[in-house]
Amino acid sequence: MKKNYIMTPGPVPISNEVLIEHGRPLIHHRSPEFSKIFVDVTDKLKKFMQTENDVFVLTSSGTGTMEAAVTNAFSVGDKVLVISVGNFGERFKKISTKFGLNVISLDYEWGEAANPADIKKAVEGNPDIKGVMIQHSETSTGVLNDIEAVGDIVKDHPAVLIVDAISGIGASELKVDDWHLDIVCGGSQKALSAPTGAAFISVSSKAWKQIDQSNIPRFYFDLIAAKKYTEKTPPQTPWTPGISIIAAMAKALELFFDEGREKVYERHRVNALAVQRACEKLGLELLVKDPRARGVSVTSIKVPESIDGKILTRTMRMKYGVTVAGGQGKLQGLIFRIGHLGYVGIFDVLTAISALEFALKEQGWKFELGAGILEVEKVFWENNYMSQ
Amino acid sequence: MKKNYIMTPGPVPISNEVLIEHGRPLIHHRSPEFSKIFVDVTDKLKKFMQTENDVFVLTSSGTGTMEAAVTNAFSVGDKVLVISVGNFGERFKKISTKFGLNVISLDYEWGEAANPADIKKAVEGNPDIKGVMIQHSETSTGVLNDIEAVGDIVKDHPAVLIVDAISGIGASELKVDDWHLDIVCGGSQKALSAPTGAAFISVSSKAWKQIDQSNIPRFYFDLIAAKKYTEKTPPQTPWTPGISIIAAMAKALELFFDEGREKVYERHRVNALAVQRACEKLGLELLVKDPRARGVSVTSIKVPESIDGKILTRTMRMKYGVTVAGGQGKLQGLIFRIGHLGYVGIFDVLTAISALEFALKEQGWKFELGAGILEVEKVFWENNYMSQ
Repeated sequence: MKKNYIMTPGPVPISNEVLIEHGRPLIHHRSPEFSKIFVDVTDKLKKFMQTENDVFVLTSSGTGTMEAAVTNAFSVGDKVLVISVGNFGERFKKISTKFGLNVISLDYEWGEAANPADIKKAVEGNPDIKGVMIQHSETSTGVLNDIEAVGDIVKDHPAVLIVDAISGIGASELKVDDWHLDIVCGGSQKALSAPTGAAFISVSSKAWKQIDQSNIPRFYFDLIAAKKYTEKTPPQTPWTPGISIIAAMAKALELFFDEGREKVYERHRVNALAVQRACEKLGLELLVKDPRARGVSVTSIKVPESIDGKILTRTMRMKYGVTVAGGQGKLQGLIFRIGHLGYVGIFDVLTAISALEFALKEQGWKFELGAGILEVEKVFWENNYMSQ
Repeated sequence: MKKNYIMTPGPVPISNEVLIEHGRPLIHHRSPEFSKIFVDVTDKLKKFMQTENDVFVLTSSGTGTMEAAVTNAFSVGDKVLVISVGNFGERFKKISTKFGLNVISLDYEWGEAANPADIKKAVEGNPDIKGVMIQHSETSTGVLNDIEAVGDIVKDHPAVLIVDAISGIGASELKVDDWHLDIVCGGSQKALSAPTGAAFISVSSKAWKQIDQSNIPRFYFDLIAAKKYTEKTPPQTPWTPGISIIAAMAKALELFFDEGREKVYERHRVNALAVQRACEKLGLELLVKDPRARGVSVTSIKVPESIDGKILTRTMRMKYGVTVAGGQGKLQGLIFRIGHLGYVGIFDVLTAISALEFALKEQGWKFELGAGILEVEKVFWENNYMSQ
């Protein structure tokens, strides 16, 4: 017998309630029954994203929404500023370059957050940029950028602000309207805790003005087509959507609001703190040095020199059933990442840290058995943490 | 958000693999498709029970099989010996009395195991008894009786030996044929880890001889009818069975054999040891004093005088999502029971003990936070426990 625990920054654990919705027999995507679910999901996503902007569900991974943002909002040759603090910042650069944009970038050490002062200088120094792209939570490092500050900088500039909030939204605060975020990307399998395969994107009226003038060829990710189909009676999607996933998202959104936004955020904050403090107790070093730059979705931990990181994560997965993630891009082999977003509670964190203890001990790492899990209990106890 | 963990002596956690089978659209119980599953389950149950005796699946709880045993094997006025070490021993007495049997009993303190020497004396002193009834694992106390010894005592006596193995079989050794057990009762929702609602019963040729002469009125639980229907082409059940549950049982049995009998037993042994040692570390007293009498399915823990047991289990359930069981019968309020049978692994035990620590601490119980979970890790580590 091996029980499996998924502690990666996506996919994440899924509740039985959501799985049951996902397992229901399919309904046709042109039926009024599906339209009802689709309209419900769209309405709930707007509330989830705290926006009155248009919101579309795309049947793709989160990266599809990043491509949709780039290919809809700009024209060939447009100058854009990409702020990169990790692998997904690099992805924005690659997509933008691929579709013929003129990319300038602001790059940070992986593990650091972007500095709003630098962004302000870059935006003011480049009045001709058509867009600014940035990650909310940078999944490859666990860094959380100060998006409110960035929104404040870009709001009076003609540039459209595109935020990849895929691993951040729903785990910590992101106010699409209040913070003036023009295009925001999210995924089904992150803090929302639905199955993989769907993503969502919000579009402001400022963004629509650029979309209407865009000349980049696109089809599947054409947001104008998506908008046209949502305006049909009954509303629908231009292409066949992931029907079961959307039904699962409806339930996942319901659970989010049942729990309550503030409680969800607090749960993520405490889970992250427990993982981070436990790892430090075990003598491990976190990639993100500045505690204020640490996000709540995923924690990156440096692999100590005496430890084989590949064997460590393989032991956790194969022997103890706990799947964590390795490093991405240039951090491959140097870090491993514990995801703690979505349907994750006290005892999932306890489980992950316990498996980590066993796997470390097998490689002879020196620490007192139980030190990590004790720290987890302490953090929960001290934070008067109710839900699990 | 609240994740739920079921740590009772039944129902028990169910794997996704089994739940998926359970969730499949229904097939008709007179169809060849169902017969195939039914035959498969029956064959696998024989292997599971280590018997070549007839095995029937009854759509009822385990208690239904206890009633089936009593009403099929005896006639009104028959003298039977009931060995009672707890609440389910009492149930055998009640059923037997209800159906007009002449019950003599051998009673033990709740928390003690039956002594084979006493049974030998009682059987030899009562040559006219038609049956002996005993629990394998007594669910109300966690005691495990020495069924091999009892089988050895009764095998040369005309009496039929009836064993309630509902919470024991599949968790620890029980050899129906080698140990000469005439009628053995089991349930779907115990070590097998399928949903509740089905039970199974094995019947030896020695038992059949008494069944053929039995004059106790019965219908739903008539084993002669059950046998007749299994001999039809294709084999089936006399009444509409729990189709989905039987399909789930087929998968659960497959998983049992995939894991391997010895590994399942070892997992249960170590899980039980971890719970028991952790509770002792927290300063709690186990109901079953003699370690050799402790079963591996459930652990009974005495509620300390300064602790409100009802609040303790309610806190564990309501605040931490961990459901454990209270005491039954005369132990109500005096003990609580942690189930650790079936689809239960390392991290479920860790979770249960962690929730217990939190709930104890809320009532001011004095212990070092983390002492219990550290003991759990130690037991697993020292026992080189691989699976979770």
